Amino acid sequence: MERIGFVGLGIMGRPMVKNLLQAGFEVTVWNRSRPGVDECVAAGAAEAESPRAVAEACDLFISMVTDSPDVEEVIVGETGAIHGLKAGTVVVDMSTISPAVTRTIAAQLAEQDVAMLDAPVSGGDSGAIAGTLSIMVGGEADVVERVRPAFEAMGKTITHVGPVGAGQTVKLCNQIAVCINNLAMAEALVFCAQSGVDPSTMLSAITQGAAGSWQLSNLGPKVVERDFAPGFKVALQQKDLRLALEAADELHTPLVGTSLVHQLFAAVEREYGTDVGTQALVRALEGLAGIEVGAPSR
Amino acid sequence: MERIGFVGLGIMGRPMVKNLLQAGFEVTVWNRSRPGVDECVAAGAAEAESPRAVAEACDLFISMVTDSPDVEEVIVGETGAIHGLKAGTVVVDMSTISPAVTRTIAAQLAEQDVAMLDAPVSGGDSGAIAGTLSIMVGGEADVVERVRPAFEAMGKTITHVGPVGAGQTVKLCNQIAVCINNLAMAEALVFCAQSGVDPSTMLSAITQGAAGSWQLSNLGPKVVERDFAPGFKVALQQKDLRLALEAADELHTPLVGTSLVHQLFAAVEREYGTDVGTQALVRALEGLAGIEVGAPSR
Repeated sequence: MERIGFVGLGIMGRPMVKNLLQAGFEVTVWNRSRPGVDECVAAGAAEAESPRAVAEACDLFISMVTDSPDVEEVIVGETGAIHGLKAGTVVVDMSTISPAVTRTIAAQLAEQDVAMLDAPVSGGDSGAIAGTLSIMVGGEADVVERVRPAFEAMGKTITHVGPVGAGQTVKLCNQIAVCINNLAMAEALVFCAQSGVDPSTMLSAITQGAAGSWQLSNLGPKVVERDFAPGFKVALQQKDLRLALEAADELHTPLVGTSLVHQLFAAVEREYGTDVGTQALVRALEGLAGIEVGAPSR
Repeated sequence: MERIGFVGLGIMGRPMVKNLLQAGFEVTVWNRSRPGVDECVAAGAAEAESPRAVAEACDLFISMVTDSPDVEEVIVGETGAIHGLKAGTVVVDMSTISPAVTRTIAAQLAEQDVAMLDAPVSGGDSGAIAGTLSIMVGGEADVVERVRPAFEAMGKTITHVGPVGAGQTVKLCNQIAVCINNLAMAEALVFCAQSGVDPSTMLSAITQGAAGSWQLSNLGPKVVERDFAPGFKVALQQKDLRLALEAADELHTPLVGTSLVHQLFAAVEREYGTDVGTQALVRALEGLAGIEVGAPSR
């Protein structure tokens, strides 16, 4: 599968396309807005006028857009890939969207003899640039193997986690754990500050033990330094939590922690906007406690 | 400070005494029940008939008991250490108790010209046996230095975190982060199982990234294997969460995540008792979801 179509040229899609070009793939792109297209064309990609036209020019169609409706539009919408794909080709959706919508799209593609993988990623734009993304892949094992060279151009850890939709499920598990670990960090920091103990000292005392987490190690010091730049934006975290809560709702399965964090982020969004980094979760708890972590202690 | 008194010979205290003896300290012990005393005497400790009598025989009095009332009893109670300690000696409480009670006891000791450190630990009985405990120390810096050789006989990471009470505050921060990270693990596992995806595969896909934590790495596989042996018992976790919630209540600071986990553990205690390991938190969520993680998927 040497001819790749790529739709969705945001901060993730652009470096992923460049890594595919670097690895020797022919890549044809389309995007809703110009800047992403221009950047990829300058790097050696061809341009097509619609997702359908991209599909006509490739054996492997990749989408990297924001949410379920965006994926539906570019794959099964009016000018979507489904109208241009030949039998035997493969669609890989690398966006983070609903597992249920993923399965519905896969079923529509299967009717045209087009296989689908869901392959959401973690690692952020830095991982996309470095080609070190973690890719969680759902779908048939033989299809995963056919696509593996392309995955290896974009990512470092490629894990086949189950049938179509399983990639999205595992990505949502990831986001559930991420957001609740973030709450753990925020709550420990606010309790510490309110108790008059230096938060940096607390972090250094507990980070290596049973309380340790990626969130604590990487975002804890940012909170103490009052650095709320993203990293990962609250807007995207909230989108992912909505997906998890919707999927859990369909399964009649309460997500008590995720739901709590989602509600707290609503207060962060109101006061600080949706473009701050997820470490701003602490600001919701600071609001409840009437204190700022990292401000001079009492 | 070569002559140490040690009160509280449970699963933590016994190996701590043996490590002190091993390091060449003279140790005099007292415990509420016989077996701990016999074990320590066999290892070379002397025995005294009350905490007061222990205090009379030492320059450094260490307590390692369960909760705030136990510490009050052995230090400032009727037969407590305060009645036997000479001016210039030091009390180190290594139990996990209330920061406020700690400060009250320290003030009473200060009137007798006895200094106090609070030095709660993490690392469990395996850390106590290996002498690799993490020790979070509150108190005056010069007192910490005088006691450091004894700490180094029992622990690996000794962090001076602030004035008296700060050790307990940091330990409670640790427990806040531990219990909420545990919820993160449990909720991701239950959502995964309910979605029909293999929990072990999910764990291997997300553990190394932004969702990673000590709890996920160490307790996640136990949940999948249905191994609920402690580790750290729910009864002691609940005691520590009560201490955190009480301290936060006094500070008028809501702990929304800790409070939620504390409530969920109540259901675990009812159904499975208080002696199970903390990874049994998942069983509360399994009850809500009507599924077991690690059981054959749907």
